[in-house]
Amino acid sequence: MPDGDTPGGTLWDLADAERAAAAVLPAAVRDFVAGGSGRERSRDGNQRAFDRLHVVPRVLRDVSGCSARSTLLGRPVRMPVAVAPVAYQRLLHPEGERATARAARAAGVPFTVATLSSVPVEEVTAVGGTVWFQLYWLRERRRTLDLVRRAEDAGCAALMVTVDVPWMGRRLRDARNGFALPAGVRAAHLGGGASSAHRPSAGSAVAAHTAETFSPAVTWSDLEALRAATRLPLLVKGVLAPEDAARAAGLGADAVVVSNHGGRQLDGAVPAVDALPGVAEAVGASGTPCEVLVDGGVRGGADVLAALALGASGVLVGRPPAWGLAAAGEAGVRRVLDLLADEVRDALGLAGCARVAQARELRTVRVP
Amino acid sequence: MPDGDTPGGTLWDLADAERAAAAVLPAAVRDFVAGGSGRERSRDGNQRAFDRLHVVPRVLRDVSGCSARSTLLGRPVRMPVAVAPVAYQRLLHPEGERATARAARAAGVPFTVATLSSVPVEEVTAVGGTVWFQLYWLRERRRTLDLVRRAEDAGCAALMVTVDVPWMGRRLRDARNGFALPAGVRAAHLGGGASSAHRPSAGSAVAAHTAETFSPAVTWSDLEALRAATRLPLLVKGVLAPEDAARAAGLGADAVVVSNHGGRQLDGAVPAVDALPGVAEAVGASGTPCEVLVDGGVRGGADVLAALALGASGVLVGRPPAWGLAAAGEAGVRRVLDLLADEVRDALGLAGCARVAQARELRTVRVP
Amino acid sequence: MPDGDTPGGTLWDLADAERAAAAVLPAAVRDFVAGGSGRERSRDGNQRAFDRLHVVPRVLRDVSGCSARSTLLGRPVRMPVAVAPVAYQRLLHPEGERATARAARAAGVPFTVATLSSVPVEEVTAVGGTVWFQLYWLRERRRTLDLVRRAEDAGCAALMVTVDVPWMGRRLRDARNGFALPAGVRAAHLGGGASSAHRPSAGSAVAAHTAETFSPAVTWSDLEALRAATRLPLLVKGVLAPEDAARAAGLGADAVVVSNHGGRQLDGAVPAVDALPGVAEAVGASGTPCEVLVDGGVRGGADVLAALALGASGVLVGRPPAWGLAAAGEAGVRRVLDLLADEVRDALGLAGCARVAQARELRTVRVP
Amino acid sequence: MPDGDTPGGTLWDLADAERAAAAVLPAAVRDFVAGGSGRERSRDGNQRAFDRLHVVPRVLRDVSGCSARSTLLGRPVRMPVAVAPVAYQRLLHPEGERATARAARAAGVPFTVATLSSVPVEEVTAVGGTVWFQLYWLRERRRTLDLVRRAEDAGCAALMVTVDVPWMGRRLRDARNGFALPAGVRAAHLGGGASSAHRPSAGSAVAAHTAETFSPAVTWSDLEALRAATRLPLLVKGVLAPEDAARAAGLGADAVVVSNHGGRQLDGAVPAVDALPGVAEAVGASGTPCEVLVDGGVRGGADVLAALALGASGVLVGRPPAWGLAAAGEAGVRRVLDLLADEVRDALGLAGCARVAQARELRTVRVP
Repeated sequence: MPDGDTPGGTLWDLADAERAAAAVLPAAVRDFVAGGSGRERSRDGNQRAFDRLHVVPRVLRDVSGCSARSTLLGRPVRMPVAVAPVAYQRLLHPEGERATARAARAAGVPFTVATLSSVPVEEVTAVGGTVWFQLYWLRERRRTLDLVRRAEDAGCAALMVTVDVPWMGRRLRDARNGFALPAGVRAAHLGGGASSAHRPSAGSAVAAHTAETFSPAVTWSDLEALRAATRLPLLVKGVLAPEDAARAAGLGADAVVVSNHGGRQLDGAVPAVDALPGVAEAVGASGTPCEVLVDGGVRGGADVLAALALGASGVLVGRPPAWGLAAAGEAGVRRVLDLLADEVRDALGLAGCARVAQARELRTVRVP
Repeated sequence: MPDGDTPGGTLWDLADAERAAAAVLPAAVRDFVAGGSGRERSRDGNQRAFDRLHVVPRVLRDVSGCSARSTLLGRPVRMPVAVAPVAYQRLLHPEGERATARAARAAGVPFTVATLSSVPVEEVTAVGGTVWFQLYWLRERRRTLDLVRRAEDAGCAALMVTVDVPWMGRRLRDARNGFALPAGVRAAHLGGGASSAHRPSAGSAVAAHTAETFSPAVTWSDLEALRAATRLPLLVKGVLAPEDAARAAGLGADAVVVSNHGGRQLDGAVPAVDALPGVAEAVGASGTPCEVLVDGGVRGGADVLAALALGASGVLVGRPPAWGLAAAGEAGVRRVLDLLADEVRDALGLAGCARVAQARELRTVRVP
Repeated sequence: MPDGDTPGGTLWDLADAERAAAAVLPAAVRDFVAGGSGRERSRDGNQRAFDRLHVVPRVLRDVSGCSARSTLLGRPVRMPVAVAPVAYQRLLHPEGERATARAARAAGVPFTVATLSSVPVEEVTAVGGTVWFQLYWLRERRRTLDLVRRAEDAGCAALMVTVDVPWMGRRLRDARNGFALPAGVRAAHLGGGASSAHRPSAGSAVAAHTAETFSPAVTWSDLEALRAATRLPLLVKGVLAPEDAARAAGLGADAVVVSNHGGRQLDGAVPAVDALPGVAEAVGASGTPCEVLVDGGVRGGADVLAALALGASGVLVGRPPAWGLAAAGEAGVRRVLDLLADEVRDALGLAGCARVAQARELRTVRVP
Repeated sequence: MPDGDTPGGTLWDLADAERAAAAVLPAAVRDFVAGGSGRERSRDGNQRAFDRLHVVPRVLRDVSGCSARSTLLGRPVRMPVAVAPVAYQRLLHPEGERATARAARAAGVPFTVATLSSVPVEEVTAVGGTVWFQLYWLRERRRTLDLVRRAEDAGCAALMVTVDVPWMGRRLRDARNGFALPAGVRAAHLGGGASSAHRPSAGSAVAAHTAETFSPAVTWSDLEALRAATRLPLLVKGVLAPEDAARAAGLGADAVVVSNHGGRQLDGAVPAVDALPGVAEAVGASGTPCEVLVDGGVRGGADVLAALALGASGVLVGRPPAWGLAAAGEAGVRRVLDLLADEVRDALGLAGCARVAQARELRTVRVP
């Protein structure tokens, strides 16, 4: 990613970051970030669903003080956006999650450190800023709770439990590439990682490692136990069915993340933003205070605006910061997030919303 | 199809098998397998309808013991899939139907031997496993009943009567290719076959042979007579109208197969999976026990999942095993079916279904 | 168009005829036949609307005696198809309308001779068969009635009055090509024709000639007068609005032709077959006996079937016979019509209809 | 744009003008005219929405005297079209707005001079014809009212206040091109302009100048004050929400312009013509006399017809006259407008409408 001072080389939209990352990443790593599962219908569908979404802007409202500031889980954020968990970020840049976390802190948004982080959570929270911990349920319950404690002890501000990965989806790009982690990149919290030693028979080394490590037996009672086991705010990520969202809210989740895992789990899972209105309605009807976030396919401020209009409190972005990281490390992530913040504010103001809360009242239209 | 042990050459999805088959088949045979009728709208539409179909997965259910096992016509199957009747399989591999049947037995799914099989049914049932017999109504009623007896005597487990071929559809690829069976491939049950001696004036030799042999006068009373004439379970294949499905159920059909014959009969017939919900509802409302299967366009486990969600008990796959057969004989079919079984289990689990029966409760969404 | 006896060169679908015509016609003539008006949305939309249309076939009905025979305006036809009026057919072949009429007679379908025929109606009716006369309203009422008398005297079986050409639409291909009739091709009934002497400032010579000759002031009272002036059956062609169709029926029209003039008049006029159900319903509700025909975009038997299912008594085909004429004269038209007859019968039978009347009961589905 | 007298070089549709302009304009200026904001979804969507729109024409009505004449804001116009405000027209031709205004006068339609005109309003009104003044709210209220007075004094016939530009949208083409005004082109009314001295950090020089100059704090009370401050007819441009339109009508606006600013402001704003019916209904229900205009994506007479059918009194066209100006100065604009007038009359007549008012009764259909 060229420097912002160079005219013509500035980052003008998030697609520029994708191009910049593609120019520096090995093809297999680029595919590991970009790929979805199966025929990639859910991956492609996420973005197409946002492309179809249009809003009806309002006019003649004072937006001179327009601000994208909002809160997520009760804490102020510069924009209603958090950085989604992305595994093994040292694949993208030697500094890995540390760099992304620094940029997120500087940009005023939460950073989510993954169970499959290539940098230990303690080094990430040492960066400062709001750090959330993404939790995969391990096959050993004790180790799972150890992870929770470790996240708490490290100072994480919330726990985001991923519920759509009983095992990893069939990511065919990785399988075809025979993708495995290079030496020096490992799952810092798991004392292992999807190295080439995990050469799989029916998928990538990452998939094989995931299958060995994660539990496919997680249930609602585990969620209940988790809720009881920590006082951290709890986000439940990977929910698409309204009844599941309402149930999570009823069990004390502070937020649900409407997500099909970036199209990387069930190919054919409904596009995330298409599932958002139903979830928002069900959670609202549940009468419990629970935020609704969405991820998958957010590629600009207009997408954030549309998500807000459909009832989201905010969105997660995963691939865009990863592109920034690959292209220019911390500075690259920072530029991606600053750009997105500019775009969110721009979209709010052009839609006649001086505040994030007003975006909820916008009507949306799906254009074929 | 390269060997599964060779990294990079493994069969990762069913499209790989299609490519592998295309690499070894003469163009005219590839077209004979691939082609639809007319403008091929129904052929293409079958797959596009599945591509549009999305499901809303559920979460936090224990899928550790997730299994694709189910039953078809009361018999256990490894997955809710059967191998559809495909004519003249010796076109694809010298072992022909024998190889496909062996692979189906090994994969734990029924194999359907066609009236137009290039291997006699006795040699197919000798392979073992569950073998169904696909019946075309011949112009001579006696010969038709002879076929039924022969299938019974050979040990077939069910009779699948095809009701959408009063004559063969206008398969223009075959016509343009002047397609005829090579020496050595013949209809084993009919003492003849669409050899080049059947050079047609308005279609392929196969079409001409079909027209000579099959009856265009089959009616509901024939179905009733057939029902009375055999104690084998009866599947009625080629039904798209709900009232026809309900009528077949009322007459004692054990299953209907919602099908437009892979887009090979009426061009412009509704895509099969689009017709499925209406048929499932009508059959359910009929109050008679009758399974609903669907075929046409199934290209992966996610498609099977979607079919189950729309009310099917299972699906038939025709072209994918044929690709496997062409590419690597029995082993090729086996790999196709094993892959599909993996995919069905994967899709079930990622949708939160430990059992096939749970898939029926999933909601579906059609994405443009 | 290669001879039907040559394998590989046979006419397998109507698109083959289009290709064959394109191979022999000068580009400007090909464009004159193919072109629509403006951005050609209505032209392209006609065909796309048929492509989207699917039907739900029925099964287990005896179609051994399946026949496409029907009646149009009370007279038997070999299939529910008539040849649409196409101007200046000597552009396509020296024999012009004579050749097309001969082929239509042989094929057992009505031929419509146009006001802008390049062969006099008397020479066309001398061919025999059912000949309809297409009437444009001329600026001089007396000359219009002269045309009616001339058609009657020549033995035409019906009068088809075109009501969607107050003037010619903006056919940009012709304009860009500076299209004009070559020497030797003229409007036989008008004592003139769009020769290069009619070099236009804002369109083609044909458009200029049309503007000079035809009346833009035709009204319902003219239709009433026409109805009173002739005992011939009367078809009103170019109707898309249900209320207009009902009004025409009420005034004694024997048929309306739902048409946007092949996409050659108002660009943006609704695709003809999309307008068909509304017209059929309105005409049915009018309580007067009036057939409903449709034209524009019919490219095969499945399209005819769909039109019947949507309430049409039959269809007109214009461009397909013109392609046949260009490619091989009378024999070419004959092959086009015979092929279409085969396709209509095929589609009927594969949809479970032994008779044309049964097609009306088929359900249709629009697939995106 | 080649001369109209040269056969083959005539302007046959508005796309020809776009091509002619593209042939002579520097790429950055072409982009400045063509570009939308963000992913250009609203820009592209405007045109696609018109492409989808079809109408149901009527027949057998006397259209011999068919005329596109109508009124806008109570004044007669040759067609229900006005020239939209387009900034800095001297970018396109040395004569700039003067040339466009002359052509509009000759063509019998209003010309809208922009706040960002590169020619002073006095020189534009000196041309004669109906001139409207497009008003941006400046940061200094006094200067805004000065502009209003100046427009009044210059003899403008109406004031068109743009309400969708609190700041300029993110026009990425301009940003990537580093677009700035060349020497000699400036905002004649603002004593400045987006010269290269306004080199921006996050957009084009034009965007930077806009941000400095325009107020993002305009509200409904400002509109009320403006209404009180002038007796000129008032058009409120940039309204998409029905409630905003009704409110503007209630405050005394003489017209609202349904517009997403040519897709140049909020990317993802609903296509203008898709928003038109809701606005027309709301304004109608408001009971106040207020015309509804629409702009964005009008590329021919059929689009004007469709807009009328959906309840518009007329349309604005911006880019098409700009193409004409770039290609051939005043004569080019004139040819664009004359062509459009021909097309509107053509579309009216072919739809069976002798008068503009009849177009309102046409039904519309959206074709996928």
